[in-house]
Amino acid sequence: MIKAGIIGATGYAGGELVRLLQGHREAEVVWYGSRSYIDKKYSDVYRNMFRIVEDVCRDDRLQELAEEADVIFTATPQGFLAGVLTEEILSKVKVVDLSADYRIKDVAVYEKWYGIEHRSPQFIPEAVYGLCEINRGQITDKTRLVANPGCYTTCSILTAYPLVKEGLIDTDTLIIDAKSGTSGAGRGAKVQNLFCEVNENMKAYGVASHRHTPEIEEQLGYACGRSVTLSFTPHLVPMNRGILVTEYASLRRRADGALPSYDEIRAVYDRYYGNEKFIRVLDEGVCPETKWVEGSNYVDIGLVIDERTGRIVMMGTLDNLVKGAAGQAVQNMNLLFGLRESEGLELVPCFP
Amino acid sequence: MIKAGIIGATGYAGGELVRLLQGHREAEVVWYGSRSYIDKKYSDVYRNMFRIVEDVCRDDRLQELAEEADVIFTATPQGFLAGVLTEEILSKVKVVDLSADYRIKDVAVYEKWYGIEHRSPQFIPEAVYGLCEINRGQITDKTRLVANPGCYTTCSILTAYPLVKEGLIDTDTLIIDAKSGTSGAGRGAKVQNLFCEVNENMKAYGVASHRHTPEIEEQLGYACGRSVTLSFTPHLVPMNRGILVTEYASLRRRADGALPSYDEIRAVYDRYYGNEKFIRVLDEGVCPETKWVEGSNYVDIGLVIDERTGRIVMMGTLDNLVKGAAGQAVQNMNLLFGLRESEGLELVPCFP
Amino acid sequence: MIKAGIIGATGYAGGELVRLLQGHREAEVVWYGSRSYIDKKYSDVYRNMFRIVEDVCRDDRLQELAEEADVIFTATPQGFLAGVLTEEILSKVKVVDLSADYRIKDVAVYEKWYGIEHRSPQFIPEAVYGLCEINRGQITDKTRLVANPGCYTTCSILTAYPLVKEGLIDTDTLIIDAKSGTSGAGRGAKVQNLFCEVNENMKAYGVASHRHTPEIEEQLGYACGRSVTLSFTPHLVPMNRGILVTEYASLRRRADGALPSYDEIRAVYDRYYGNEKFIRVLDEGVCPETKWVEGSNYVDIGLVIDERTGRIVMMGTLDNLVKGAAGQAVQNMNLLFGLRESEGLELVPCFP
Amino acid sequence: MIKAGIIGATGYAGGELVRLLQGHREAEVVWYGSRSYIDKKYSDVYRNMFRIVEDVCRDDRLQELAEEADVIFTATPQGFLAGVLTEEILSKVKVVDLSADYRIKDVAVYEKWYGIEHRSPQFIPEAVYGLCEINRGQITDKTRLVANPGCYTTCSILTAYPLVKEGLIDTDTLIIDAKSGTSGAGRGAKVQNLFCEVNENMKAYGVASHRHTPEIEEQLGYACGRSVTLSFTPHLVPMNRGILVTEYASLRRRADGALPSYDEIRAVYDRYYGNEKFIRVLDEGVCPETKWVEGSNYVDIGLVIDERTGRIVMMGTLDNLVKGAAGQAVQNMNLLFGLRESEGLELVPCFP
Repeated sequence: MIKAGIIGATGYAGGELVRLLQGHREAEVVWYGSRSYIDKKYSDVYRNMFRIVEDVCRDDRLQELAEEADVIFTATPQGFLAGVLTEEILSKVKVVDLSADYRIKDVAVYEKWYGIEHRSPQFIPEAVYGLCEINRGQITDKTRLVANPGCYTTCSILTAYPLVKEGLIDTDTLIIDAKSGTSGAGRGAKVQNLFCEVNENMKAYGVASHRHTPEIEEQLGYACGRSVTLSFTPHLVPMNRGILVTEYASLRRRADGALPSYDEIRAVYDRYYGNEKFIRVLDEGVCPETKWVEGSNYVDIGLVIDERTGRIVMMGTLDNLVKGAAGQAVQNMNLLFGLRESEGLELVPCFP
Repeated sequence: MIKAGIIGATGYAGGELVRLLQGHREAEVVWYGSRSYIDKKYSDVYRNMFRIVEDVCRDDRLQELAEEADVIFTATPQGFLAGVLTEEILSKVKVVDLSADYRIKDVAVYEKWYGIEHRSPQFIPEAVYGLCEINRGQITDKTRLVANPGCYTTCSILTAYPLVKEGLIDTDTLIIDAKSGTSGAGRGAKVQNLFCEVNENMKAYGVASHRHTPEIEEQLGYACGRSVTLSFTPHLVPMNRGILVTEYASLRRRADGALPSYDEIRAVYDRYYGNEKFIRVLDEGVCPETKWVEGSNYVDIGLVIDERTGRIVMMGTLDNLVKGAAGQAVQNMNLLFGLRESEGLELVPCFP
Repeated sequence: MIKAGIIGATGYAGGELVRLLQGHREAEVVWYGSRSYIDKKYSDVYRNMFRIVEDVCRDDRLQELAEEADVIFTATPQGFLAGVLTEEILSKVKVVDLSADYRIKDVAVYEKWYGIEHRSPQFIPEAVYGLCEINRGQITDKTRLVANPGCYTTCSILTAYPLVKEGLIDTDTLIIDAKSGTSGAGRGAKVQNLFCEVNENMKAYGVASHRHTPEIEEQLGYACGRSVTLSFTPHLVPMNRGILVTEYASLRRRADGALPSYDEIRAVYDRYYGNEKFIRVLDEGVCPETKWVEGSNYVDIGLVIDERTGRIVMMGTLDNLVKGAAGQAVQNMNLLFGLRESEGLELVPCFP
Repeated sequence: MIKAGIIGATGYAGGELVRLLQGHREAEVVWYGSRSYIDKKYSDVYRNMFRIVEDVCRDDRLQELAEEADVIFTATPQGFLAGVLTEEILSKVKVVDLSADYRIKDVAVYEKWYGIEHRSPQFIPEAVYGLCEINRGQITDKTRLVANPGCYTTCSILTAYPLVKEGLIDTDTLIIDAKSGTSGAGRGAKVQNLFCEVNENMKAYGVASHRHTPEIEEQLGYACGRSVTLSFTPHLVPMNRGILVTEYASLRRRADGALPSYDEIRAVYDRYYGNEKFIRVLDEGVCPETKWVEGSNYVDIGLVIDERTGRIVMMGTLDNLVKGAAGQAVQNMNLLFGLRESEGLELVPCFP
């Protein structure tokens, strides 16, 4: 059994890791790290785990944890891992970081968008960006550090990736309008996330300044081989789980001036994702709904070509706590240890 | 593999059966019955099942299904099964009925509360009331027909059962105030169940007349050996899943006039439920929350003794589509076929 | 124009006072007290008031406010007003207190249930319990201090009052099962009130120990002329506004052993409430819904007699921020200043 | 008093008209038309109106209504009014049509997008598009027919209008990503609008084909004097009320290549909307939220310039049943009869 430690086990993403690892046949949680609830029973914090998890929460002692665990998941605030990670730790244990600390290769970009100093940039080069469907070849038993992608990011990139990679859209026109359930805002006690403030309400936030923007741009830039600058606007939606992205871009016209057909576009997606277990390209005319993937590791994608404007509307959805966080982290763990990639992740979406 | 057929596979309870049986290692669905969607792909109705279920919906041909299946689940309107069930069918296949047709032993009571004629009362005597934790001894490979309990009923009975059985409360004072998520109202297109009518709203309904009342009374009557008459009031709550019951009853005082202590009451519950996988009696002072059992087969129970009034407040919660319908149906199927009772039901509740 | 000051203007009840007083033709807000937001524009806290309220928030300086205002509304935590109220203040200004400080006549009961010392019990005797429909005769231009009833309390008392007063129910059997929207929990930043913790969830809380219990018992005791002990169980519901109470009690039988008829019971309610603008007794068979009173000062009441159990089920609903807080406070202000009782309160409920 | 008749009074927009007209000092409803509920008490359909509205619902007899009323509001399905409107009716009564029948000047465009034949195109030329802030000069006591704009349309147009009119954005790049509460889908009993289907869910619909698209394009085309083709994508959000639009467009650069500053853009909005009672341009950095306008006739607008992409993000919100339907209809009625434009519409938004 692979021994897993979780730092930040009482946040929503950490809690989802606990849930998923309960169903994993080759891994077990040996450390429930939670600075806020040290010595408190984990199931007193998350009572869904009553009689399922008997452990108590422990402090964030990474050194000690590195001795006990084979893999550490850090579901922690930005800057935490960068502040404590050492060569010694990485020499003993694999780390899957659910924060943004090692996602962005250019440390200056990280420091600008996150407004904090990066305290261990020396590990950035070796970190693999753990978007499994794109980078799984780089995630092996040799890998020590995986930067687990953000929730908005995973959804935004996978939805557009085939067309960006194939040069079929003009990335200068790419606009990503994203909508997220409220669990993405975390479990911190803030007035703006109170039930009465979120329920029966909707708003954009972080307009032209959200931190996931450079992460999306960097990865799509790798795909097309040139720098990408795009508009990304997140919105808060009164639901617990789910991200929906609606992406707009101008299609490149063929030599004869015609737009590519739906079938041509669809063939590209099928080529990239046809064999992907966790990416479901929906039938023509079907728009993805967040509810259809709830609780699962799926990304659902729908495509509409707008002949009038020459644009394609690409829509993607995922569960922000699963494929957008804990599920992808487990998927990365599976890759790191040479397990079946879908182990522990064969979750059937729950409806209604 | 046990071959299962589902009649009413596109209702919410039927859909949940499909979800649960996907994760069952010894059963598979061979017939997705849905009169409304004949010949339509099941995953076009419930897109969470896209690329998981490839079958199309079929008509409700019970005779033909009895040839193909080992067990039939009927998640159908009241009266349907009673109208079509025959000795021939029962001689070929086991039936787990999620409707109320065979739950009530006294056919006159059934006909009064449901307002319809029972068209096959001859099968009522052999039907076992499938409240597994109470009646599992009667559900064996000899059993042909299981009457799967209702959602309100399962929650209401299990919450009070130990004290009723032990004669520790005065059943004449028993009041059950129940609250349910909206999936309990089914998937029929009715104005009263529209989002805008339910959201930001709450109401009681069926006051002093709800059909689950006699079912609860009958079962609690068996427990205490005498007839029980109680108040049962269901309420509709703006959430998808979950039932919460708050039950009030006067505690019988001891010879010295004192109320039993929490520890004494608790010991009774532990005696009945201490070894039950799916019933979790919470720690003292903890009130159950519907969210802690969502998506799982658990029933959570909390108890508070009110010294001032001499009453006990018993609170129970379950997921109406799982332990309140499809989960319990699978649990019954497991008992019918001698499988491990929890097979396919080791679902960890999903939070948030 | 009556000059009104609000202490606690940025809580939910305070915010509702601001909304209601905007539509009041004879009063205006001259002081927006909010210790948390001193010097911040009120409309930067509640942006619904953008371009409607131009004032900034001010500190809780009661002495100074007493000079400026004709009436002070205190929408403050328990114990605040008791700690600062003085004879001097009361000699200058009328006070409508939305906290519980002066609601309970027996200071020992207050201190026991609230767990705090009452620091100005000398004002308790003169405080009038501002349940307008019951006590309006006592709320006059002579009154200096009104204890505005709690939200659960207003709903619970008014729903049962006529039958308690007339001795038609056995108050020893009275059980109040109450359900509340989340705005009743206030605007404090607590994990338990986060959207993801409340949404898709329901629970009881404060079982057998909620502070509104003695307030209900005291007032119903005045009605029937003897002490009342009852069960009161509040529940948290995933909606913003609205309280629904479901009350159970055994009806006193007539000399011939028969239960009173619906018409007899109804006639009693009509006698008490037939001329009340803000109490609507619904037609026979209609259950109240929280949504039908949302945003208004109405209390809706429905009644069902359960012949089987000999009980009556009394259901009441109101908007916890209006009739359960700010609306009733304005109603009390109107009485204090001899205005039309419904001035500023002719709000049509908003649906959906 | 102006006598108003409502056809479609039991739909959500019709119900909101009833609510608003209750508070209107110079108009009264004399005809509650509802084909579905003929002879039923209006307050039995919408119980919020219990003891407020005593009338019964009547059939859709436009001829008879034209004799009784001064103004008719038609909150009816597409094609209804076009099928029954006559010169005789228009000669007797003013009509404010909340459907789309007379919004689009080019009948071919209407017939293509709505898929129905227009049965009285002869009235299209005289119909005034009732977007009050833009066209109020054309809505006078001479006007007989007002085409009340759609909810998405009102929000989409007003949010971008000043920049389109002034030529400050490239309309070829205009993308409107719109999100709506579920009341916009109406009160028809459809599975897709059931609580359990909408709650905890989000989706786009009508992508590249929604009927409000040509209406927006036509009106913005008038503003800039040339044809506009844009992308419009509506989304369904799990809330009752509220529309939020997020609009993206490339800003035209100045001669020196620089983007216009926020202050320059803001000055334009202030010039157009500075004196508009119902349009609130928010402070820099503030994003509109649907909740801040709920129940009111306001449109709130926020603006962010994205230097990186050269785009402006324009965000607008309104209550789809008020400014997006019934509120604007009343505003049009006020203009038609020379009343104060805001009469009956001074509604303070309700929070939370």
